[in-house]
Formats: sequence, structure tokens, C-alpha cells
Amino acid sequence: MNNCEEEIYKAISKFSYGLYIVSSREGEKPNGQVANTVFQTTACPPGIAVSISKNNLTHVCIADSGLYSVSVLAQDSPMPFIGLFGFRTGRDINKFEKISFKTLGGCPAVTEHSLSIATVKVNKAVDMATHTLFIGEVTAAETLRDGVPLTYEYYKTVKHGMTQKNATTFAPATK
Amino acid sequence: MNNCEEEIYKAISKFSYGLYIVSSREGEKPNGQVANTVFQTTACPPGIAVSISKNNLTHVCIADSGLYSVSVLAQDSPMPFIGLFGFRTGRDINKFEKISFKTLGGCPAVTEHSLSIATVKVNKAVDMATHTLFIGEVTAAETLRDGVPLTYEYYKTVKHGMTQKNATTFAPATK
Repeated sequence: MNNCEEEIYKAISKFSYGLYIVSSREGEKPNGQVANTVFQTTACPPGIAVSISKNNLTHVCIADSGLYSVSVLAQDSPMPFIGLFGFRTGRDINKFEKISFKTLGGCPAVTEHSLSIATVKVNKAVDMATHTLFIGEVTAAETLRDGVPLTYEYYKTVKHGMTQKNATTFAPATK
Repeated sequence: MNNCEEEIYKAISKFSYGLYIVSSREGEKPNGQVANTVFQTTACPPGIAVSISKNNLTHVCIADSGLYSVSVLAQDSPMPFIGLFGFRTGRDINKFEKISFKTLGGCPAVTEHSLSIATVKVNKAVDMATHTLFIGEVTAAETLRDGVPLTYEYYKTVKHGMTQKNATTFAPATK
């Protein structure tokens, strides 16, 4: 059986996600990317995991610093802003040049269009071949404002957003 | 700093999730539970992870069989049905006695009130102290019907659903 069959992608495309900016730094240089695969793994202490493509600069940053932050995007985040973090690479541009961010728990965290931010200290990196699952504990967090969190479903169906090829939910068979 | 502080739980409570029944078996005996922490970790081959409390019988089943299935719950799933899988233990009752399920890839999968099902063969079990993160590859999947997937947010705010104490998103400080 070919695991990449269309039926599998169709079935698991019904999973629900939020949409986040995951940020980190290489030395002092901040970088970040859009991710939908952020989730809480334990209640107390509060553990978080995220799956990041090995192709992405953010992967280098997290492996280097052992830290990442999660910014929960607001539903009304403009598409050019999401596109900056989702479809550009920090190898070509400084994504943090013209946007608002702060340092939280030693890690840059995007505050613009974000409802809350949390910084994670990585204590496990699980090799998933194409991606690494970075698991750790939340060391600092802030709620920035009230609002509706952006879901991946809303991004796709209402905002007509695309899925980047390094996303875990990019379906090779079905595009 | 106390990681269990209210600020952290408030910030990460804005993460978005779906709601699923994760099923497995101990020998031939099926069991399952509600979980919100299901997510895709890789695109090709399609990898899935779920965080399961060590207190739960489903944890014993997955560790025993090396298999689990994910059923994507429909938004119109009735609360008594969700309650059966979310707030009862398979140690006291057979949750599968009066509900519809099928065997998919060698694993029981709940089909009732489900939009799609997928069976995962576990290839990594990551110890998270209170929970285990079971990661694996999807070996079989089926889409059962069209419909809107139930999100954790909809379950909490529209259906007024509670969070079970073994859930990763159970907030000790804020309840």
C-alpha cells in the first residue's frame, strides 16, 4: 500500500488546527514562520509540541537556541502579514524588520495580530525524517488581547489561504 | 517561576483543536476515549501524533497493540455519546457494546458520529511524564461522510462541554 494515497489525505484533512507564528533566533537574529501543528502535550507542567520542517530556517534557529515562541494569530490577521511569515524565507529577508515583536523568556515573539504568546524551552527533539517535533515546557506566556483565534479551516475556506509545501498538511497526492 | 501559573494557561487556552475518539485494543477487547491532541506531524509519509494520559485504559491498549485509530467527530455529535467516550472508563464498561465501529488496519475505529477514520501504526512513544506522545504512520483511512468537524472550541462554548482531568488541556490553576 502506498501511504501517500489520496484516501488517507482526504480522511486526515478533516483534522482541526489553529494557525500560529512560531519564532526563534539564531544567535541574536530572530526568525519565524507560520505553523498549524502546535498543540499542548501535558497539563502540568504545561507542555507544548510543534512539528517544523527541516527545510526551514526556523528549524535551524530552534535547534540552535533550544527555544521557540508561539503567537496565536487573530482571525482578522491580514493575508499579506500571514504571507510574510508563511511564504517567505528568513534566508532572503528579515521578517522581523517591520513588524511588532517582543522578547519573552529569551525568545523573540511576534505580537502583531496575535492574541497571546508563549515561549517554550525545548527538552525533546523527535526526528520525524522530513520534520522535527520540538517538545518542551512553557516558561513564559502573555495574553495580549481578546479576539477570535484564526483556525486553519478559516484560513483555507474564508481567506482562501494556500498551504506551503513544507507544511505537514501539504498533501502531495491531492495538492 | 511556577509553570502552572494562571497566565500560562490563559495564553495557551487560545490554541485551537479538533475533537476525536482515539481507539485501540487490548488483545481483542476494544476501548477508546475522547482526545483533542491529534495532529499531523509529517506530510509524506503521513505521520500522526496523539498525547494520551498514562492514567487511561486507552494508553494500556495502544502500548499493548502498537495501534490506534482516530475518528473525526462530527459537529452534531450528541453529548451523551461524547460523554460515553470522554467521561467513562473502559475499566468499568464496554464502551463499544452499543455503538457502531469497524476494524480498520487491524484496529477498532468508531464510525458513529464520525466523518472520517484513520489507523496509525505507532513507531515512536515519547515519554512526557504524565502523558505519552504516540507517533506513527497512517496505514489505512476512510472518509465516511461529509459534514463539519467538531472543534474543541465549539464543544466548550456551544455545547458547554467540560474538560476531563486527564486531558492535556485541563488547567489545574484555572479549572
